[in-house]
Amino acid sequence: MRALVYDTHLQLVPDLDLPDPPADEALIRVLLAGICNTDLEITRGYMDSHRMLGPRVLGHEFVGRVERAPDASWIGQRVVGEINCSCTVCPTCLQGNAPHCPHRTTLGIDRRGGALADYCALPLRNLHRVPDGISDRHAVFVEPLAAALEITERLHVRPTDRAVVIGDGKLGLLVAQVLRLTGCRLLAVGHHERNLDILAGQGIGVCLEEALSPNLVPADLVVDCTGHPGGFVLARRLVRPRGRLVLKSTFHADVVPPPDVVPPPDAVPPPDAVPPPDERCPPLNPVDLTAIVVDEVSLIGSRCGPFEPAVRLLERHLVDVESLIEAELPLNEGLAAFELAATRGALKVLVRP
Amino acid sequence: MRALVYDTHLQLVPDLDLPDPPADEALIRVLLAGICNTDLEITRGYMDSHRMLGPRVLGHEFVGRVERAPDASWIGQRVVGEINCSCTVCPTCLQGNAPHCPHRTTLGIDRRGGALADYCALPLRNLHRVPDGISDRHAVFVEPLAAALEITERLHVRPTDRAVVIGDGKLGLLVAQVLRLTGCRLLAVGHHERNLDILAGQGIGVCLEEALSPNLVPADLVVDCTGHPGGFVLARRLVRPRGRLVLKSTFHADVVPPPDVVPPPDAVPPPDAVPPPDERCPPLNPVDLTAIVVDEVSLIGSRCGPFEPAVRLLERHLVDVESLIEAELPLNEGLAAFELAATRGALKVLVRP
Repeated sequence: MRALVYDTHLQLVPDLDLPDPPADEALIRVLLAGICNTDLEITRGYMDSHRMLGPRVLGHEFVGRVERAPDASWIGQRVVGEINCSCTVCPTCLQGNAPHCPHRTTLGIDRRGGALADYCALPLRNLHRVPDGISDRHAVFVEPLAAALEITERLHVRPTDRAVVIGDGKLGLLVAQVLRLTGCRLLAVGHHERNLDILAGQGIGVCLEEALSPNLVPADLVVDCTGHPGGFVLARRLVRPRGRLVLKSTFHADVVPPPDVVPPPDAVPPPDAVPPPDERCPPLNPVDLTAIVVDEVSLIGSRCGPFEPAVRLLERHLVDVESLIEAELPLNEGLAAFELAATRGALKVLVRP
Repeated sequence: MRALVYDTHLQLVPDLDLPDPPADEALIRVLLAGICNTDLEITRGYMDSHRMLGPRVLGHEFVGRVERAPDASWIGQRVVGEINCSCTVCPTCLQGNAPHCPHRTTLGIDRRGGALADYCALPLRNLHRVPDGISDRHAVFVEPLAAALEITERLHVRPTDRAVVIGDGKLGLLVAQVLRLTGCRLLAVGHHERNLDILAGQGIGVCLEEALSPNLVPADLVVDCTGHPGGFVLARRLVRPRGRLVLKSTFHADVVPPPDVVPPPDAVPPPDAVPPPDERCPPLNPVDLTAIVVDEVSLIGSRCGPFEPAVRLLERHLVDVESLIEAELPLNEGLAAFELAATRGALKVLVRP
């Protein structure tokens, strides 16, 4: 089969063996897949320390059709799939924390071939049927929309809350749309007028970061979806004391303290004390934890979320994902698809096998 | 001015004096008002023990235009208004619980003339401007929609929750629409196919009460919007152990225990021990509190809610209120409007002065 493979560089491999799933898994023919920022980060070395055995097939956002399965009722079903494949029997799994199973593999990320290919495999328990009312182009968004919904799954966002979403990329636009549904007072901050316009059209307050008023009323809830350290610095500035700051994207860089908390020069270690980047893995994010204590801010890390509510929101037409599609390319043009996805401000690039 | 007045019966009074608001209040010309179940209950004697001084003008759902105000910037503004007028200085108010101020008056309900009239008066702090994008017909729904939003203001409803709304009247349809936005798995139970169809069209699961499966999976959250004791009994049956049961409407009748908890005959007091109905005020609601403890159910009373998020949901077109309008009648036909509003399954009847 064809697959987009990252080893030391990204390549389209034309003749990879099909996955050979174990007894409790399904073989799925991929209908459409999406490129996520995590995929881009992987091609930049984010997971190099967790090198897969053998070639790493990328991709974890997909919709597909089950071709082979131990339970015949699944065969022919159009499905989306949760990406964390847990062991189901360890203490973490038994506590109901399967996405955090220490033995898990993760589709297209960690020791499990991904969906930017003709086929992929997942355990049956990871699959969710896609209702007919949801097109392939929209079903691909179930995984990232579920990640956005993890915020309201984990936190009580009140209709009277003042919330800010930082970042107008793919994930930021989904997070803002999910928060919009709570009725809260919402401001989305970004760098791309074109992307913010999608939210403005839905009655969400928007602002370019450079135009932010210095007198903005601090927010009860700030969600950082930027994926870069500057987002965290801004989020800290915008959240009120006793507020909540949700970290919604992984960082492949250091968090630089904001200017007013930069330590005085004599406190900075000499340059030769800082290890070169390639010796630091994972990268360190120096955060002023004292300020977090003084302001009594809650920092909340957030990753994967519940699929079924994401399916329901799409079925109820409560989230606009069509506007979030930058382009759809055939798998044979997968390298070009990655290039397009990596351009500044690009939204979701879909890849059709 | 004209006003719908309840004393011992409902009447349209043609020549009532205009309200003469104190210094911190606005005089508001009513543009459109709605009839709520509470209004109907009042005409059935629900508040007779709290008789107003003088004639009681009904109505607390309205949109109006400010005619006179101590702050000139309000004059001419189209507004909706919170109905609880608190003292602002007692311990309850200072704790941020103004809607529960023991000294409060309540628009059209308790010692404050209501909005089913040409004019009403409210403190400036109770008023909210209505954006141009919201019509009068929709703005009237801000008050009941705020009441529905009080559920998600008070409780963390998770996208993965299984929720049931009992009651397909005006309030039930608003509550179901607010819960729909959370992405939760939602079932609305009622008696009127016409009303349930409005929700079904929005992708909400619906079921006539008589068709409920006895094997329904118990819900994490049940909201009783029926306003009658049978709703509570059904809600208790549908909520899971450790689940939450929200009481969203006042009862003007006794809650009868479900058949399986009716005490044995020898435990029933002799008929002459039960005081006649007119000596019981307010009516008693015998609830099996032991079963509430055994099942560890949380019972949550809920009444008025936040106006601003309700305005935002209407502005974002996230709640369909147009379909909830049964009819719009002129104030001169106010008695007919009440008759229509009292018919079984009737939705919102609007009254235009």
